[in-house]
Amino acid sequence: MGSKITVIAPSSTANLGPGFDVFGLAVDAFYDEITLTKRTTKKVTIVTDDEIPINPEKNTAGLVILNMIKKFKTKDGIEIKIKKNVPAGYGMGSSAASAAAAAVAFDKLYHLKLKGNSLVEFAGMGEKASAGAVHYDNVAASVLGGFVIVRKNPLDIIKIEPPKDLRMCIAVPRLAVPKKKTKVSRSVIPKKIKLEDSITNLSNASAIVAGFMNKDSQLIGRSIKDVIVEPARQHLIPGFVGVKKNALKAGAFGVTISGAGPSVIAFSTNSSNLKKISLAMKNGFKIADLDCQTIICKPSYGASVKK
Amino acid sequence: MGSKITVIAPSSTANLGPGFDVFGLAVDAFYDEITLTKRTTKKVTIVTDDEIPINPEKNTAGLVILNMIKKFKTKDGIEIKIKKNVPAGYGMGSSAASAAAAAVAFDKLYHLKLKGNSLVEFAGMGEKASAGAVHYDNVAASVLGGFVIVRKNPLDIIKIEPPKDLRMCIAVPRLAVPKKKTKVSRSVIPKKIKLEDSITNLSNASAIVAGFMNKDSQLIGRSIKDVIVEPARQHLIPGFVGVKKNALKAGAFGVTISGAGPSVIAFSTNSSNLKKISLAMKNGFKIADLDCQTIICKPSYGASVKK
Repeated sequence: MGSKITVIAPSSTANLGPGFDVFGLAVDAFYDEITLTKRTTKKVTIVTDDEIPINPEKNTAGLVILNMIKKFKTKDGIEIKIKKNVPAGYGMGSSAASAAAAAVAFDKLYHLKLKGNSLVEFAGMGEKASAGAVHYDNVAASVLGGFVIVRKNPLDIIKIEPPKDLRMCIAVPRLAVPKKKTKVSRSVIPKKIKLEDSITNLSNASAIVAGFMNKDSQLIGRSIKDVIVEPARQHLIPGFVGVKKNALKAGAFGVTISGAGPSVIAFSTNSSNLKKISLAMKNGFKIADLDCQTIICKPSYGASVKK
Repeated sequence: MGSKITVIAPSSTANLGPGFDVFGLAVDAFYDEITLTKRTTKKVTIVTDDEIPINPEKNTAGLVILNMIKKFKTKDGIEIKIKKNVPAGYGMGSSAASAAAAAVAFDKLYHLKLKGNSLVEFAGMGEKASAGAVHYDNVAASVLGGFVIVRKNPLDIIKIEPPKDLRMCIAVPRLAVPKKKTKVSRSVIPKKIKLEDSITNLSNASAIVAGFMNKDSQLIGRSIKDVIVEPARQHLIPGFVGVKKNALKAGAFGVTISGAGPSVIAFSTNSSNLKKISLAMKNGFKIADLDCQTIICKPSYGASVKK
């Protein structure tokens, strides 16, 4: 009775092409589940059947809870039960989903009624555990749901409700993901870029925002064009060029890397032949001798109490 | 009697901070006026009291008309009467206003019913005469009115209706404008930039688009932050730092260079003390020993037949 709560938070895709470190979109492909239970022992413990660190200092959700306990000076011990469903290391916002669920669960458990920006900030602290640095694109999407624009200094999240007909096909290749994958996939991006390229990406990103605002899935899809990050990263994903080409040929409006990869995401609508697009992506990976899981999904609501 | 038409087109401000070469906004500060009259002699002639080239090949409006005659194979000669009101060389979209008025006037004169993108494309040809290269931010705003996002390859303009309460204070310094000003002010912008800076500008630009969509003038204003072009150009405008500081202190939400400058533009709403902001900008220029004209204005409709 008030001493236990379960929250689920969705997977998410970051960047959407040109919006590197700025755009995020919650997707209903997977949900992580976190149950917080108040304990009389003044300790934070983690219970899970998944292969993740159970030291709270090294666990995404654990770090969020430790930070929130410190900030709000709560006195109870807390047991964190974690059920991971978002595959980790595939660019689907796995750590962000756990972090978002943890932050929202703590907020509900103590009736804090924190605002969106605050919840995102706390959830962001959990990202440190996995990515080594704080990025808010995935956590903002996972906390708030829908499409988000992240501005920093100060943190200022703009949330936009996606068009109802927007659909995504995600292909998750069965690839051994290197440790520190995000760090590796960030290291290949040039630190200096051409002004001309930044103008191209900015104009496409602006069109994506207008597309979400106008509920125009086609405008969103055809603006998913990134001349900076995707070209620098695509060699890390065997078969990427073929997967993208196949998906576009099968009717996708736009295709890019989901977050830091290696998942590939195609944007379309519910009136497209989504199975055909998924199959085309699968065939693309097959040519590179890779098996993959394909998921047809839509935008998701944000982290919320499990019903 | 169908052989003569007069069209006016508004001044405009390009960039709005982070949206270099992508964003444009039509403003009702000034309107250029173009009257086209069909003539039996198969020549294009220019009539004007203003100090502008009267050789059609070297005149902004003239170039637009020559191109359109060629494209649509019209047989008449045309007299172009030009009344310039937008001051040339101050970052107020002067050549774009003439080009926009010329393109729309030709369209009306021959009942072509061209689409927005086409009109912008033809008007853009006039920009060559003044800027030496085609940029569509000002012409798109001047043709279509309101706020525009320009995407190229292929040209694709997204128009958004601005919030009704949005107001701008523009300070036009009395400064001898160098010939080829746009070329000079482009030459100071680095060709390579930091990825980090491009992310900052892209996030602010995305917020500006969301602000125009949500009719949120405050969000637009506080997102007018440019860490790439403004820092590189501001030394070309004596007193800029003081003008900006003063305007912000007087209540402006955001301040930046209008287009390629030297005009400075402050963004606010009709409930702000706009006279105070204008005076603060004037005082800023005074410290740099520069007199300036200040104009309080609002977004404008696009090029249209004079009533």
